[in-house]
Amino acid sequence: MAPLISIKSSDDRLEIVNQLLLPHTTEFLEINSLEEAHDAIKTMKIRGAPAIASLAALSVSQHLTRGLKAIPAPDYLASRDNLKAHVDKILAYLFTSRPTAVNLGAATRRLTKVLDDNISAAQDTRAIAEALIAEGKAVADEDVGRNKEMAKWAGEWLLQRVKEQGGDVSGGVNVLTVCNTGSLATSGYGTALGMITYLHETNKLQKAYYTQTAPYHQGSRLTALELQTLQIPSVMICDTMVGSLFQHHNIHAVVVGADRIAKNGDTANKIGTYNAAVLAARHKIPFIVVAPISTVDLDVHDGSQIPIEQRPPLEACLVRGILYPNEGPQQQVQVMITPSGLEGIYNPSFDVTPAELITAIATEKGVAVKAAGASVFDLSPIV
Amino acid sequence: MAPLISIKSSDDRLEIVNQLLLPHTTEFLEINSLEEAHDAIKTMKIRGAPAIASLAALSVSQHLTRGLKAIPAPDYLASRDNLKAHVDKILAYLFTSRPTAVNLGAATRRLTKVLDDNISAAQDTRAIAEALIAEGKAVADEDVGRNKEMAKWAGEWLLQRVKEQGGDVSGGVNVLTVCNTGSLATSGYGTALGMITYLHETNKLQKAYYTQTAPYHQGSRLTALELQTLQIPSVMICDTMVGSLFQHHNIHAVVVGADRIAKNGDTANKIGTYNAAVLAARHKIPFIVVAPISTVDLDVHDGSQIPIEQRPPLEACLVRGILYPNEGPQQQVQVMITPSGLEGIYNPSFDVTPAELITAIATEKGVAVKAAGASVFDLSPIV
Repeated sequence: MAPLISIKSSDDRLEIVNQLLLPHTTEFLEINSLEEAHDAIKTMKIRGAPAIASLAALSVSQHLTRGLKAIPAPDYLASRDNLKAHVDKILAYLFTSRPTAVNLGAATRRLTKVLDDNISAAQDTRAIAEALIAEGKAVADEDVGRNKEMAKWAGEWLLQRVKEQGGDVSGGVNVLTVCNTGSLATSGYGTALGMITYLHETNKLQKAYYTQTAPYHQGSRLTALELQTLQIPSVMICDTMVGSLFQHHNIHAVVVGADRIAKNGDTANKIGTYNAAVLAARHKIPFIVVAPISTVDLDVHDGSQIPIEQRPPLEACLVRGILYPNEGPQQQVQVMITPSGLEGIYNPSFDVTPAELITAIATEKGVAVKAAGASVFDLSPIV
Repeated sequence: MAPLISIKSSDDRLEIVNQLLLPHTTEFLEINSLEEAHDAIKTMKIRGAPAIASLAALSVSQHLTRGLKAIPAPDYLASRDNLKAHVDKILAYLFTSRPTAVNLGAATRRLTKVLDDNISAAQDTRAIAEALIAEGKAVADEDVGRNKEMAKWAGEWLLQRVKEQGGDVSGGVNVLTVCNTGSLATSGYGTALGMITYLHETNKLQKAYYTQTAPYHQGSRLTALELQTLQIPSVMICDTMVGSLFQHHNIHAVVVGADRIAKNGDTANKIGTYNAAVLAARHKIPFIVVAPISTVDLDVHDGSQIPIEQRPPLEACLVRGILYPNEGPQQQVQVMITPSGLEGIYNPSFDVTPAELITAIATEKGVAVKAAGASVFDLSPIV
């Protein structure tokens, strides 16, 4: 079966899969404004750092494409000053949709650079808008090829590492991942799940293990569906079972994506990543981050400076699924798993894994490791 | 409000709360046979190592009470040989309901000893049955007082430890627990949750934190309800958030119950306990096990010899709750959170935390710690 997709886009038409309803219901939602894009990201109808950057960029392209077609033309096309003020404003607005993921910022910076360069070159406003439209589409389009590159770098690095340590990769490796980092979290192929796909495609994967990833269950809903669709041999575990898995099974690596990586390698990623990293370190299992260069934020020296989004407490009390057993058609519902009126609830969306626990960071440019004896990375040369 | 209870018993009447339906529905189920007791334990309508031992013992008392009343008298009362064969058989049968928890075995041994002692003393079969009935009730009744003792030992030990290390306990301590170990998991008061209750009652608790504990959510269903009922200040976290909690909050101890403790202190407990222990060790947070002496199995030298129950894979795909939002009366349902037809699923019910990660083991007799420099306990003197 073909991989799942998160975004469909052509000319000024833009649709996303509502990921809150997966795996049971595949509902495409039209995105017809910047506000709808912002809302879809904020409410997690689309998630995954690269995918939200792609959607934000494509929504800017859509907005400007419709502006160029509009009669009368919108005010923001009346002058370069108007256009500059308008585009700066919409980029700042989109950036507020989720605070931790930084790819959104990288997309914003790319668009701002195209805007500023074309204004300096005194292009007319329609030509500048065309350039921005093209750049927005490029942000989304380039993601797939980049993912395939980082997946290959990461996969080959792991195989080499296992062999160097005297392991046998002929039967394939076992890899644990958390959350969802596949085609649904990106424009396609995926980052950490891309590495797993690469290993499978090259007959070097024994099994992919993945955590459910409470409270949103991106693992049991989305990663499960992606691996099932791609027919990749896989095993779901609950978040409580990571340590037990390492005690009883031969796991060759933990591989995760990233929402923001500090200059020293400290990595913000989905809540639960740090749990897995500490457990991997105890069991001497390599811990690999796979993410595009745009995830690295050199303005952030270490993880303590990364803002961590706190989600609404109620969301940690709710679980989506289909009624079971169910005699009629599949009926998607949401249930509350706690007593009503529960007061104290902690619901951070991300945690920060310190560089000391990370063995390697794979990007589209290659694999970064720490210098001998160092406890942190220096990522400035690769950005 | 009065604490919740898991078992109601008088004369030959026996009822349990169906814990699968908590916190939203309080349904008492009559237990009218050994088979119903066995089924209630196996399907987790009642759970918690001390509670299942209590129910098993009370179901033997019920069975024999009804036997004594029956006309004509059952064959097993016809001779001491018959009675011995019959009671041995029913105890062996009850013991098969869940393989990891050992308190069930301790209850079985107590009843077997009463049986054998009375047979040696050539008591008549009705007198032996009466003695067994009394012993079965004692197994359940003694649990509460014992829990209060171990809770106090554990609580005072922690306060002392925090003070010794220069901490200030005047504002109370923060404690994380996993699963459910309160009045619902025992005959009353609880083990690890008993310690939390003790700290609260003595004004030495700041907050109790607890994990949801997937896949059965004993934390978010049962511990949440118990703490809410007792009005103990508390905060729920997802299983993915243990590390994040330790990074961002001042947690003074992790406190857990136990299903079986090996002679060297290795402890089998609810899946996810080992995750929490490894994370606690990294953050230098004391890790305390609170359990009755009957949980210690001196026949088991270390944790590798403890059988770990694997639950049906489907159970890890299902979550119970009430529909939300819900306009009518509360409606309890079960939902499937994964794609249909998912194949690979890992669902162990317990994990083993090695003694090296355990700071203290509190029982009704006091608190055991490791000898200076030792990585394991020697529990033989306390049993």
